[in-house]
Amino acid sequence: MKIAILGFGIVGSGTYEVLAQGNSGVEVKRILDIKKVDSVADKLTANFDDIINDEEIETVVETMGGVHPTFEYVSAAMKAGKNVVSSNKMLVATYYEELVNLAKENGVEFRFTASSGGAIPWLSNVIRRTATERIMKIQAIINGTTNFILDAMQTRGADFSEVLAEAQNLGYAERDPSSDIDGEDIKFKCSITSSCAFGVHVPHEDIKVFSLRTIQKSDMEYAAKMGMTLRYMTFASRKAGGAVSAYVEPSFIPANSLEASVHLNNNMASLFGEYSGRLSFYGQGAGKYPTGASVATDIIEIAMGTGFGVSCTGKAVVDNTAELHRYFVRTAEKCEAIAAIAETYEEKDGAFYAVTREISVAEMYDIAAKVKENDAGAFFAGIHTEV
Amino acid sequence: MKIAILGFGIVGSGTYEVLAQGNSGVEVKRILDIKKVDSVADKLTANFDDIINDEEIETVVETMGGVHPTFEYVSAAMKAGKNVVSSNKMLVATYYEELVNLAKENGVEFRFTASSGGAIPWLSNVIRRTATERIMKIQAIINGTTNFILDAMQTRGADFSEVLAEAQNLGYAERDPSSDIDGEDIKFKCSITSSCAFGVHVPHEDIKVFSLRTIQKSDMEYAAKMGMTLRYMTFASRKAGGAVSAYVEPSFIPANSLEASVHLNNNMASLFGEYSGRLSFYGQGAGKYPTGASVATDIIEIAMGTGFGVSCTGKAVVDNTAELHRYFVRTAEKCEAIAAIAETYEEKDGAFYAVTREISVAEMYDIAAKVKENDAGAFFAGIHTEV
Repeated sequence: MKIAILGFGIVGSGTYEVLAQGNSGVEVKRILDIKKVDSVADKLTANFDDIINDEEIETVVETMGGVHPTFEYVSAAMKAGKNVVSSNKMLVATYYEELVNLAKENGVEFRFTASSGGAIPWLSNVIRRTATERIMKIQAIINGTTNFILDAMQTRGADFSEVLAEAQNLGYAERDPSSDIDGEDIKFKCSITSSCAFGVHVPHEDIKVFSLRTIQKSDMEYAAKMGMTLRYMTFASRKAGGAVSAYVEPSFIPANSLEASVHLNNNMASLFGEYSGRLSFYGQGAGKYPTGASVATDIIEIAMGTGFGVSCTGKAVVDNTAELHRYFVRTAEKCEAIAAIAETYEEKDGAFYAVTREISVAEMYDIAAKVKENDAGAFFAGIHTEV
Repeated sequence: MKIAILGFGIVGSGTYEVLAQGNSGVEVKRILDIKKVDSVADKLTANFDDIINDEEIETVVETMGGVHPTFEYVSAAMKAGKNVVSSNKMLVATYYEELVNLAKENGVEFRFTASSGGAIPWLSNVIRRTATERIMKIQAIINGTTNFILDAMQTRGADFSEVLAEAQNLGYAERDPSSDIDGEDIKFKCSITSSCAFGVHVPHEDIKVFSLRTIQKSDMEYAAKMGMTLRYMTFASRKAGGAVSAYVEPSFIPANSLEASVHLNNNMASLFGEYSGRLSFYGQGAGKYPTGASVATDIIEIAMGTGFGVSCTGKAVVDNTAELHRYFVRTAEKCEAIAAIAETYEEKDGAFYAVTREISVAEMYDIAAKVKENDAGAFFAGIHTEV
């Protein structure tokens, strides 16, 4: 099978090298990029028309990132009868319904395993399970940068800002780390994962996020005192009437749980099947060769005529009103809205620490928004006693 | 697709029920069993000829267990042009090469995901990865009974015999628990897993096993003192000249490792891909519906014309001479053979505890055999500082 790769960055070049080492019979005929790369000079083009008009190219591999003109390129490829493989979480989360249906209309394959979980065969297994049983719930550590930070804070008792700087120096975190520490990255991955799991499109804009940005060492210490560990996680589940609960939040989890043993920048994603029970998948969520290998496998599956596609019945309503648990909340001053839902609310070293009663994620989110108007440094974490 | 199920025991009936709840289009036409089951009376037969001679039956699902006449039934099915799905670890481990090649010769599919790891899509992912990269190593907790026992010993400080009795009462352990606690069950699963991972047949008879049977509470305590936990694991890796290292042993592992957080009767199996790095898979390794769902997915994949087959280039030589690590050894008396390789060897409460220098698994196995001639209660555990 002849393919084209759009974007020869880290993932695109990783995919290329993995394919070049193997003997899958997949041939990279064209690479779209404006930069010059000597080793692949004969394949490079800056003109997408060279790809879309080439009938020999059966599959277009999109590793260029961004939503525009990526969406237009990918749509055009499908309409031209070409399969599409993408590693681009923002594209897939944004246009999930459109692209799944466009692929179906045009009788082509659309695969995107690497868009959530990097090297981990997470989405491919989520989709495979839906052939046999309903997936009831998902939960995941699916952002390596924030896990690296939290793991270092936990194991070394380090401060957030100190570890963030270290992660930036190691290249794990961006210069502007907002997408990671404010949960945007996780939100895209939650959208894609829950869409695959539940057979709908869960719009990423509707997923509620509690940011990790305001975390302090004392929050970690509070978790430890409760026999728990702090991880930045996402949760999604089926709710009544076809609705989906979906949110991202700093999470207190038991210290002896699997997720608490996910160290460094690794990921762990879990599904709960009605027959299988909990199935968890662990590995590197990023990186040139790990992610490249995942993209390459999607391509090879298409070449071999194997693997599963997805279907999408439409946009889902995101509803977190029936999703209940306790929260840990730290505020600078004692705050009426928190006191009203707190089981304990104690002052220590000039900050106030609450553990709330069981409350819905939706209600907590509304309260948090109000609290933050006067206290931008307030911190909120869900307490998940059973993960 | 019409199928037949051989053996309507726990896994067979679980598979049947999972398929009956779904809308995969798979129809169970015949069930081979000698017992009477009212709910499926119209499908039952005690005569395999009713299945092998039925041209409508495209796939035979073997959940009856044992090696004979199972092997003969399964071979006959393949020769008759029928696909085979099996959950039978002993059959697959024993006749891996024969069955893989017979399937190929007859142009039929042969799938056996549930034979190692129950509900966990472990083998399916091992095989999927081999399409893209070489798997260098595997390691696994893949026996639920012994993990239940070790986890209970660790978390409750309980004695082996006490927890074994509890596991038997809960139905997790057999009346005769030898297959679990002497590592036979794990050996079959290691054989199948490493065969899939390395593209050969790793004969189960050649896999070395250190039994768990002689473990005592004090061994757990010794591990804890070293900041480690004890799990019963299997390891396999590629060695020079196409050989394979493969063994089963009680294993000291870091207390903060993922495997140390595998509780109750759960399993965790990991592969190390040359590009992907470590990928781990966790879930229920047994049970009617979890295992039934896994078998059902193999069947549905065949019906959909998807999924991966394996190939086998022949029997592998098992060679553990280049596989090196330290061992923990407990003996009743101070023993010359152990003293000769010990870095520390101390007496406590009437028993002798050694930590050896790095030694090959092969050499340790030979020494252990000699030690056990005079000290049947001696206990051996590999020290794996990096899992």
